[in-house]
Amino acid sequence: MKRFTIKELASAIGGTPVGDASLSFSGAAEPQTATNDQLAVATHPKYVARLAEGSAQAALLSEGVDWADLGLKAAILIKRPKLGMGHMSRLMDQRWRQGQTGIHSTAQIDPSAQVGSGATIGAFCVIGSDVVIGENAWIGPHTIIEHGTRIGAHATLLARVTIGKDVRIGDRFVAHSGAVIGADGFSFVTPEPSGVEKARQSLGDQGDVTAQSWMRVHSLGSVTIGDDVEVGANTCIDRGTIRDTVIGNGCKFDNLAQIGHNVVIGDDSLICAQVGIAGSSHIGRNVVLGGQTGISDNTRVGDNVITGGATKVLANVPAGRVMLGYPAIKMDQQLEIHRLLRRLPRIVKDLTASKKPIPNDD
Amino acid sequence: MKRFTIKELASAIGGTPVGDASLSFSGAAEPQTATNDQLAVATHPKYVARLAEGSAQAALLSEGVDWADLGLKAAILIKRPKLGMGHMSRLMDQRWRQGQTGIHSTAQIDPSAQVGSGATIGAFCVIGSDVVIGENAWIGPHTIIEHGTRIGAHATLLARVTIGKDVRIGDRFVAHSGAVIGADGFSFVTPEPSGVEKARQSLGDQGDVTAQSWMRVHSLGSVTIGDDVEVGANTCIDRGTIRDTVIGNGCKFDNLAQIGHNVVIGDDSLICAQVGIAGSSHIGRNVVLGGQTGISDNTRVGDNVITGGATKVLANVPAGRVMLGYPAIKMDQQLEIHRLLRRLPRIVKDLTASKKPIPNDD
Amino acid sequence: MKRFTIKELASAIGGTPVGDASLSFSGAAEPQTATNDQLAVATHPKYVARLAEGSAQAALLSEGVDWADLGLKAAILIKRPKLGMGHMSRLMDQRWRQGQTGIHSTAQIDPSAQVGSGATIGAFCVIGSDVVIGENAWIGPHTIIEHGTRIGAHATLLARVTIGKDVRIGDRFVAHSGAVIGADGFSFVTPEPSGVEKARQSLGDQGDVTAQSWMRVHSLGSVTIGDDVEVGANTCIDRGTIRDTVIGNGCKFDNLAQIGHNVVIGDDSLICAQVGIAGSSHIGRNVVLGGQTGISDNTRVGDNVITGGATKVLANVPAGRVMLGYPAIKMDQQLEIHRLLRRLPRIVKDLTASKKPIPNDD
Repeated sequence: MKRFTIKELASAIGGTPVGDASLSFSGAAEPQTATNDQLAVATHPKYVARLAEGSAQAALLSEGVDWADLGLKAAILIKRPKLGMGHMSRLMDQRWRQGQTGIHSTAQIDPSAQVGSGATIGAFCVIGSDVVIGENAWIGPHTIIEHGTRIGAHATLLARVTIGKDVRIGDRFVAHSGAVIGADGFSFVTPEPSGVEKARQSLGDQGDVTAQSWMRVHSLGSVTIGDDVEVGANTCIDRGTIRDTVIGNGCKFDNLAQIGHNVVIGDDSLICAQVGIAGSSHIGRNVVLGGQTGISDNTRVGDNVITGGATKVLANVPAGRVMLGYPAIKMDQQLEIHRLLRRLPRIVKDLTASKKPIPNDD
Repeated sequence: MKRFTIKELASAIGGTPVGDASLSFSGAAEPQTATNDQLAVATHPKYVARLAEGSAQAALLSEGVDWADLGLKAAILIKRPKLGMGHMSRLMDQRWRQGQTGIHSTAQIDPSAQVGSGATIGAFCVIGSDVVIGENAWIGPHTIIEHGTRIGAHATLLARVTIGKDVRIGDRFVAHSGAVIGADGFSFVTPEPSGVEKARQSLGDQGDVTAQSWMRVHSLGSVTIGDDVEVGANTCIDRGTIRDTVIGNGCKFDNLAQIGHNVVIGDDSLICAQVGIAGSSHIGRNVVLGGQTGISDNTRVGDNVITGGATKVLANVPAGRVMLGYPAIKMDQQLEIHRLLRRLPRIVKDLTASKKPIPNDD
Repeated sequence: MKRFTIKELASAIGGTPVGDASLSFSGAAEPQTATNDQLAVATHPKYVARLAEGSAQAALLSEGVDWADLGLKAAILIKRPKLGMGHMSRLMDQRWRQGQTGIHSTAQIDPSAQVGSGATIGAFCVIGSDVVIGENAWIGPHTIIEHGTRIGAHATLLARVTIGKDVRIGDRFVAHSGAVIGADGFSFVTPEPSGVEKARQSLGDQGDVTAQSWMRVHSLGSVTIGDDVEVGANTCIDRGTIRDTVIGNGCKFDNLAQIGHNVVIGDDSLICAQVGIAGSSHIGRNVVLGGQTGISDNTRVGDNVITGGATKVLANVPAGRVMLGYPAIKMDQQLEIHRLLRRLPRIVKDLTASKKPIPNDD
């Protein structure tokens, strides 16, 4: 197992080594649990006090923390320890892509597929016709890539990923187990206008209802994904109806998220776990959707929007807004409403004290 | 690649060809992006103006649109373009079921299993004992079908589907990657009544709590699914406890939905992405549950009910209702409450202006 | 197919046999559908009347029910029929672990892996280096277990489970199809503080926004899971950043749940379907999180807490609380607020009748 010195770590992450820079470690840990063979990581000055609970000899600390007082033999000082931790984690992750190399004998690769140099293809993979996989890809076992799909260089598909037909993916793509990219969109149509179509127009009244069967609309579009995208475990990105679903460069998706057909997401957006984005919605650049956020279909969410956990967006959101709640409104307004709601029984009681009783129309 | 003429498309979808009916296309596209080799599809008259942004020579249009004014060489006029699009998409999807034929040499098929004539079974499939698969089925790679399960004719399991033991499925079944049908229901019991059982009775008070371990209740029931059902990627339909979970004919499930044990769903219901239906609930016919809808356990949702996105149904819903919100109430009422909530800070301030201050009891 | 007598069932589940204890059955069913070859199970006295609709000759009943009046030939009387049903279901589930035995010839098992005696490993499994699997494990087809992972004795992995590297799992582990344990945590960092970091500090204002790219923080921790844990279909439990994600003994997870990096869950907690627990949160012992519950990151939920369906926990919850709603508050308070909200239009109208009109500031 490789070991890491203060000197080499500081250099790799852009920090300043202080104390005994030759001290070496097998890994990193939180301040309270770090052993004397681990570098303690305090991503915020408030965690520094916890060093006393562990037995670290050295720590990654914010610039300005008085390391000499902490009984350490060495430290790395850095302006933004969170960022330092990111760089360091990449260096220390010796298990990333470990466990297989080369093309496994059990992989089923269509003769027309092109696999780039240095690529690894795991056991029981199925690679369809005309697939193109870039150089230095690492495709974990049980991955299925259907015909006509192209994946750029340096992809890491950790295990058991399904990528449908004719998908286009950029460089440095990462996907986790159970991700499904390019399943058919959920699009069905009834012979006559359905109750849903009527209820949308009337905002709640579906009029007379006749039971109808649903006819499948096949997805003729596919999915286009930029560079540096990461897709979490069991997350689904559906193909488009007559154009592609489009994911910008640098987007990151957590687990169990659902991206509907025809959705467009701008660069560098972050989609947390269990988020659902319904069909044909547009999400801007640099957007952050908190866990369990829902976005209605055909909705526009502007650049730099942030939603808090479980926010349900039922209407367009202008750029730059921080949103919360169901339905989504600006976070500060929502927090004020939440405060009032908790006091609502008291408020109503107080206001009605001098009036006639409120009728109960439940 | 097959090409399609205006004449043959119009005939196939029940529309009226106008202009040069011999014009042919490689596919379809939205009005603003259609090339001169694609048929533009305007599913609503409001999209017609966008034809000017693209370079389509022909379009699928609503009856009544004045196609001659649009600079097109031809068009197909149809009463309900959405429906025409559905029919056309089926015709144009030349990649549907493409990529494999016959029984793959790596598939593990139990000798007692019966596979219908014309069926395709993909690489690395595992087909258990006494399984029966109907004629003309197309089973994608990595699919697992456990012992005793029967699937009707013309099934399309796109890739990596898991179907548990003793499941009964009708004809024309479609399932996407990662779907799990017939996993065990989530049913556990404590030696003494649990806090949940007490809190349900008291609506919020669980009384004295003693920590207890949970004992597994095995699922002795299975899953019964009708004809023409489609199940999305990573969706789960659990088996029943001592009877089957039952899915009616014509039901369609989007991705990442959860259908609990003993649930019964009537014919032609549409279950959108990330919906959760808890154990033993009954959903009627022709119901539409919007994305992220939740249905409590042991709840009855009547025929033709529609729920908006993220609606949380905590009590029975009569037939025909359009519901929204958490907790679910009628959509028009909920929208009125949403409007009042946004104004609540102002209303409270205004009403209390002439009164003593509201006490803060947070 | 094995048959079960009243005598042996009563003895196995700790109930009292009455009537003809030699009567035997092929299985169990609900009162209204039970045939004369099935034992009817009435888990509550209110279901007893439904026996008249079926044709059961015998039933599992609560102590105190007057079985002689019901036209039955025999019965098993028990204090807690739900518990009896649990015990009986285990006995009757003759299909549990059925379908394969031994090490399948197609399984790829690294020579350094240790597989315990009596273990079954299904078709197309991939078992990495230094993996240790305990005795009598039953590993269904298509399961992937990455290098360095240890699983205790008597594990049942039903089919197609993915377990990442260096995971530690106790005895009697159960996992369903599509479960992913030990995917990388969702942790990304920007060069400068992101809009999210700023909005958290200000509770809603992200200040000036500069678009930034996200850098991956690799997960150096893994997952530690206790004894007697069960994980549902397509559920994800992510690995920790620089320490393990920890799941206590006896925890049960339904389908499609998401457990983020660094989360700690105490013993005997029940996590229902589609629950999401964000990174670094602590969940106590004997907690029950209802379906679609969301827990914000870095949040503490005390022992014995219960949340109703779709509860969204945005702040710490003291031990023993029963919570509901978004944001989560005590269930009884929330139900009172729900009642007031439904009457809000009337209340506001009534209160403002004698005042000047409420300004509309939508």
